[in-house]
Amino acid sequence: MLADAITLYQQRVDKLLRHYISSQDDTEPKLKAAMQHGALIGGKRIRPFLVYAVGDMLNVPLERLDACAAAIECIHAYSLIHDDLPAMDDDALRRGQPTVHIAFDEATAILAGDALQTLAFEIISQPMAQLSPKQQLAMVAALAKASGYQGMCGGQSMDLNATDKQIDLTTLKQLHRLKTGALIRCAVALAIIAADITDNEQDLLLEFADAVGLAFQVQDDVLDIIASTEELGKPQGSDCESNKSTYPKLLGLSGAQATAESLINDALSALAKLPYNSQLIAEFARFIIERRV
Amino acid sequence: MLADAITLYQQRVDKLLRHYISSQDDTEPKLKAAMQHGALIGGKRIRPFLVYAVGDMLNVPLERLDACAAAIECIHAYSLIHDDLPAMDDDALRRGQPTVHIAFDEATAILAGDALQTLAFEIISQPMAQLSPKQQLAMVAALAKASGYQGMCGGQSMDLNATDKQIDLTTLKQLHRLKTGALIRCAVALAIIAADITDNEQDLLLEFADAVGLAFQVQDDVLDIIASTEELGKPQGSDCESNKSTYPKLLGLSGAQATAESLINDALSALAKLPYNSQLIAEFARFIIERRV
Repeated sequence: MLADAITLYQQRVDKLLRHYISSQDDTEPKLKAAMQHGALIGGKRIRPFLVYAVGDMLNVPLERLDACAAAIECIHAYSLIHDDLPAMDDDALRRGQPTVHIAFDEATAILAGDALQTLAFEIISQPMAQLSPKQQLAMVAALAKASGYQGMCGGQSMDLNATDKQIDLTTLKQLHRLKTGALIRCAVALAIIAADITDNEQDLLLEFADAVGLAFQVQDDVLDIIASTEELGKPQGSDCESNKSTYPKLLGLSGAQATAESLINDALSALAKLPYNSQLIAEFARFIIERRV
Repeated sequence: MLADAITLYQQRVDKLLRHYISSQDDTEPKLKAAMQHGALIGGKRIRPFLVYAVGDMLNVPLERLDACAAAIECIHAYSLIHDDLPAMDDDALRRGQPTVHIAFDEATAILAGDALQTLAFEIISQPMAQLSPKQQLAMVAALAKASGYQGMCGGQSMDLNATDKQIDLTTLKQLHRLKTGALIRCAVALAIIAADITDNEQDLLLEFADAVGLAFQVQDDVLDIIASTEELGKPQGSDCESNKSTYPKLLGLSGAQATAESLINDALSALAKLPYNSQLIAEFARFIIERRV
């Protein structure tokens, strides 16, 4: 059931992204192609999934969630394009494909990221019958706050500045809360804005989102070690030698795994208090720490 | 009178930008400092000037224009930071000061530009008593459209791809319409959204904006030659040897100057049809082609 829903929402948002980008005029075909490459390179589409799945749980028609789902993925895609740049993480491959600055060039990658960020706000501010201007404006505000200095951008900056440094658990948590957590929380916040629920229900859902967002990152760190062991035959924990602070480095592998599990338990207990059928998003929460990729 | 108004609005928007950036938390002091450096490096603040001066002409209180003025300047500032990057125009100096990637580093410059773009949308979407959510949403949409693929970003891409190529006048005009014109038109559009005027008045004002936007760029090309002659002692027109297409290269220096004058005449005759006291913005339009910096 979860796998089906993931595929369904993935296809839905991919179709939207293809539409939003290809419907722009053809003034700059290279820039347009770079935007398409960056936005449609694949991926689990976790943020759109959360927009749709949480919204659907709250009885919001999917059409009211489309703009949010596409916009948040544009923000995520732009951040990946910029994070991969030579001056940042300098990655040549993403999901087995050349990154945007490799497939095109660095200037085009910078501009494609810039234009995808703008596109997010363009999509979410287009007049639409399904949402009130007040709701749409609240969505713009939520997306901007989660993406900027006090969210994702600040987190990426912390991450770059923490490289080659010893940081403590509080700082690492703060880093991930900003770099990954803010946008995952925002996905849930966008669904909330499209719905009509009580303050208490909102708080529980955001509690769920925060726990899932952090667990996602802890599991990424864990997978970095497990994947290394299986694929490269390196001993577990050899990434402790690397130059980035991770949960396993600070807590040990089993300590990190226990943290991820405890976070997912927090997420599930927040869900359990909600008067909605949360089966799908509970499954999703467990998937976050059970996934192997 | 124009000089006083320019200074007044410049100080007003600088104060706002300082406030908006410094009121963010201190999680990432380096990124914050880079944003401040990029946004407060100086400049004529032409876009905020147009927001304020056109809005004031239309009897909009300045407080209703503050968010727009600050937001559009954040977009302009982000674009300068990214345009100066080594992969783009590779400029080490701007207004006699080191550019952001020189004063800080390349990764920080990319992120500062990214975060300033986001800040623009954050500022303009904050709940405010002076504007309705519908107006604010229209402002977000206008700013996004003008900044993205179909506006400024697309124009910068065209500019990069036109380097070392011969382009014709139509293409050059399109390039400037996107790269510089879109945001200048947007400044006027934002003031219009904050006001309550007829469709015909809107059309006249946007006609004014388009003519001024293009004239601004033509005059920039002209100044590039005149400044060279005066400051470097190079013969007039020696920039024709350079690798970028310019109006003087395509039309000759006096042809370019005549084009700028003709555009300003168009702008002034659009203004003359408006039932408002347009003295200040008429002066501003003349200043665009009389300025020497």
